[in-house]
Amino acid sequence: MQVYLNGSFLNHEEAKISVGDRGFVFGDGVYEVTRVVNGRFFREMEHIERLKKGLNGLKIAVSRSIIESIPEISRELIKINGHQSGEASVYLQITRGAAWPRTHTFPDPEVEPTVYLSSASFTPHTELHKTGEDTITIADIRWARCNLKTVNLLPNTLAKQQAKEMGVNSAVMIRDGVVTESPNANVFGVKDGSLYTYPATNYILDGITRNVVLDIAKELEIPVHFDPIRQEDIFQLDELFFSGTTTDIQPIIKVDGHELSGGKPGPVVRSIQKMHRELLNS
Amino acid sequence: MQVYLNGSFLNHEEAKISVGDRGFVFGDGVYEVTRVVNGRFFREMEHIERLKKGLNGLKIAVSRSIIESIPEISRELIKINGHQSGEASVYLQITRGAAWPRTHTFPDPEVEPTVYLSSASFTPHTELHKTGEDTITIADIRWARCNLKTVNLLPNTLAKQQAKEMGVNSAVMIRDGVVTESPNANVFGVKDGSLYTYPATNYILDGITRNVVLDIAKELEIPVHFDPIRQEDIFQLDELFFSGTTTDIQPIIKVDGHELSGGKPGPVVRSIQKMHRELLNS
Repeated sequence: MQVYLNGSFLNHEEAKISVGDRGFVFGDGVYEVTRVVNGRFFREMEHIERLKKGLNGLKIAVSRSIIESIPEISRELIKINGHQSGEASVYLQITRGAAWPRTHTFPDPEVEPTVYLSSASFTPHTELHKTGEDTITIADIRWARCNLKTVNLLPNTLAKQQAKEMGVNSAVMIRDGVVTESPNANVFGVKDGSLYTYPATNYILDGITRNVVLDIAKELEIPVHFDPIRQEDIFQLDELFFSGTTTDIQPIIKVDGHELSGGKPGPVVRSIQKMHRELLNS
Repeated sequence: MQVYLNGSFLNHEEAKISVGDRGFVFGDGVYEVTRVVNGRFFREMEHIERLKKGLNGLKIAVSRSIIESIPEISRELIKINGHQSGEASVYLQITRGAAWPRTHTFPDPEVEPTVYLSSASFTPHTELHKTGEDTITIADIRWARCNLKTVNLLPNTLAKQQAKEMGVNSAVMIRDGVVTESPNANVFGVKDGSLYTYPATNYILDGITRNVVLDIAKELEIPVHFDPIRQEDIFQLDELFFSGTTTDIQPIIKVDGHELSGGKPGPVVRSIQKMHRELLNS
């Protein structure tokens, strides 16, 4: 597999960064994962806009020419790797770059950012989309700027691993008594024909697929309430589902061992799934 | 400068890790910085014990032989780099290793961890130790497992950078209305001859130098209260200071533009500084 690193395409096993890279020593960088279906990049500009917001949030200066080259590099990458047909994803990470000596404060003068892209073929979780997922609740112990898509992802990896070790598919994270996100997706509840989801504050990622769901809700005339779901109200919901770039629209049928939605995906998530799939394929 | 990476000593500019390293894509690793004075490693075993706790906390499996080799590698490194005399520091980072494809869950089967060490000559902040530091208060927006010394350090770097941009030396971080830490040191207050500091919970790092201060307090018969300092009580304190491996014992004389302790280091921090320096040099 070929990847892109700082101006070159090279074999992934030869792609190396400095041990002084601030991505390695501080997690000082942002990333995006973009879905590619038959060579078409889904919501590409939204990913690039969010990337720019993240870079601004961390005050990482990246030249406009680098940002503008991302679509071309991404297309070259999927061409080289044979990911132009079928399902694929492109991973993009930009860090503040390598600097000596290691200091918490930003390098002064600035250094060149590290720009890394990879592509991979992708298998949607089609079976789980049909059956629905089993989940557990986990405390959301992340920092207070979850709106930035940074590579400080330890709480997310630990939560996902905990779910795996508990024998379930994923986790519903709880902060201050309400549902925020999964370790890698947004969460929606359905009650009496309306959607409920955490508002796009600093405590969740403003997900691209979350916004696709909001577009679909508008199209289907489903009311949306930006009210957090209280943990104690989870089992009063009619339906619950995740949305995410690699998660797609994922029904949740079990939380902490208890069935939800009669143990099978409900009609609202089914209609949103269908429209999301159509948008992905269009 | 030579560094150590996964079994080899090599020039720091040639020391590279895979873009698939989980330290780079998730910040999935821990680190330690150990002070070295004239070739003597200060509180070395405490650093290694904390490293082991951090590895356990993240469930990163590292063989006993690797852990046991750290003192020898560290000594070889300072020898190669000419850091055997005077002040130096050794940086050690261990990540879960490089894995393809990128998944939030841990690599299964496990991969070899990445082990990286570097050494640097070190200049203590002697002038600031005499005059005391100017600081600002900043919200402590870190995650809820600050007791683990991981490389998910974005909130720390951003806070330190904010302090720099505000023209001050460092920051006093506030969570839920009380003082927790600085971006890279513990905090102690002095009131009526007693020390006050945040208890060693999941919200602060159990600092090695913090424990040196506790040892010194015992020696000097200074009572210690593990009670958090409320933000509104900061200016009721007689003295305030930081403790850290590279910070040493650092008096704070200003917070948010207001003088503390009459604008100069007080007698308690002076006596602790003196004993700390004696321990470092002994």
